[in-house]
Amino acid sequence: MDEIRLIDVKEDILADNDTVAAQLRDRLRKSKAFMLNLMASPGAGKTSLVVQTIDSLKKDYRIGVIEADIDSTVDTETVLKHGVQAVQLRTGGFCHVDATMVSRCLDTLQPDTLDLIILENVGNLVCPAEFDTGAIRNVMILSVPEGDDKPLKYPLMFSISDVLVINKIDALTIFDFDIDAVEKRIRPLNPDIQMFPLSCKTGEGIDAWVNWLRQEIKKVRSE
Amino acid sequence: MDEIRLIDVKEDILADNDTVAAQLRDRLRKSKAFMLNLMASPGAGKTSLVVQTIDSLKKDYRIGVIEADIDSTVDTETVLKHGVQAVQLRTGGFCHVDATMVSRCLDTLQPDTLDLIILENVGNLVCPAEFDTGAIRNVMILSVPEGDDKPLKYPLMFSISDVLVINKIDALTIFDFDIDAVEKRIRPLNPDIQMFPLSCKTGEGIDAWVNWLRQEIKKVRSE
Repeated sequence: MDEIRLIDVKEDILADNDTVAAQLRDRLRKSKAFMLNLMASPGAGKTSLVVQTIDSLKKDYRIGVIEADIDSTVDTETVLKHGVQAVQLRTGGFCHVDATMVSRCLDTLQPDTLDLIILENVGNLVCPAEFDTGAIRNVMILSVPEGDDKPLKYPLMFSISDVLVINKIDALTIFDFDIDAVEKRIRPLNPDIQMFPLSCKTGEGIDAWVNWLRQEIKKVRSE
Repeated sequence: MDEIRLIDVKEDILADNDTVAAQLRDRLRKSKAFMLNLMASPGAGKTSLVVQTIDSLKKDYRIGVIEADIDSTVDTETVLKHGVQAVQLRTGGFCHVDATMVSRCLDTLQPDTLDLIILENVGNLVCPAEFDTGAIRNVMILSVPEGDDKPLKYPLMFSISDVLVINKIDALTIFDFDIDAVEKRIRPLNPDIQMFPLSCKTGEGIDAWVNWLRQEIKKVRSE
């Protein structure tokens, strides 16, 4: 019964991870650093959103980025060009980021010296949803070309996210994608989720996203 | 050391899975049924390619489809409308399909009565690459909106695939995507991979893909 054996181990790991994640969140709050965990499919626009966010906020806040990938360092190279601190987390085959991996990255990034930390998770709508990374907010991106049926297929990811960014709205004219249909499918799973339709390419909708981030950073600093 | 414990279990499971997968491939060859394992990110166009393939081949071959998803039955409903046999495999949180899951599906689909079996894997570029499903060929889709840097980030998936379908080429005008760059990045990982750029929306390029499939079906039947 291999499947049952796998589930047992996974439950142990998830329980241990929850403990590490809770400690990590305490550490972030004490440092007055807001951390978000950014999740999405491959190619939904995670790095583009990170770059847009950096360009909008770097004059006001000290920003650090954790770029997680199975392999390669291309995203960290991109982010470093925008003048913030960044660390590459190479998961070496792991399909998700857990709280222990993030802890190690924070030893390098030093949350005491930062206001905003963005964790760009591995491109995957399944496994990252199972692991609490210690972030203060979970944000997911669904991009228009992926289709509006995704909440039906990946319900856990849509359930555990505080914010849904709908990216590539500039492509709404050429893809069959109904934002109202997404909302209808997501509300039963997650009544409180906030939605920000935007385009990292044209900049449309970025302001609303950035304003939400400013509020979240302010909350953590005033606690 | 939770991570090491996880790897041990995973290795056991992978070894057991390889045995089941080899038996499954024998069973398929004896039944003269060609099975392909179709993998991609969420929203890359797996179901659209399945539907295009059914419509092109159903007059000549007996086709069965296995639709794997974490949750929902929407893809099976779509496929059934196109007049072929189909079975929904609900993985219930599992991020991949393994050979034991496929075996159970084949007990229902009966390979002796089919020429072509398409397994639509869970939408994920990471985990499905680790599990041999027993399929005779592995096919992956990369869609234009996902970007041309994906071979750098998900090298295992690009290494274990026999065919790379590049879908949504009708959107090449609005996304920065360089097919030559993909090829340059993929060749060191996988010198023999065959590439089929196409659009499930416009039908462009579908013929080359379907002709490849006809050849593969023929090979299995003449063995």
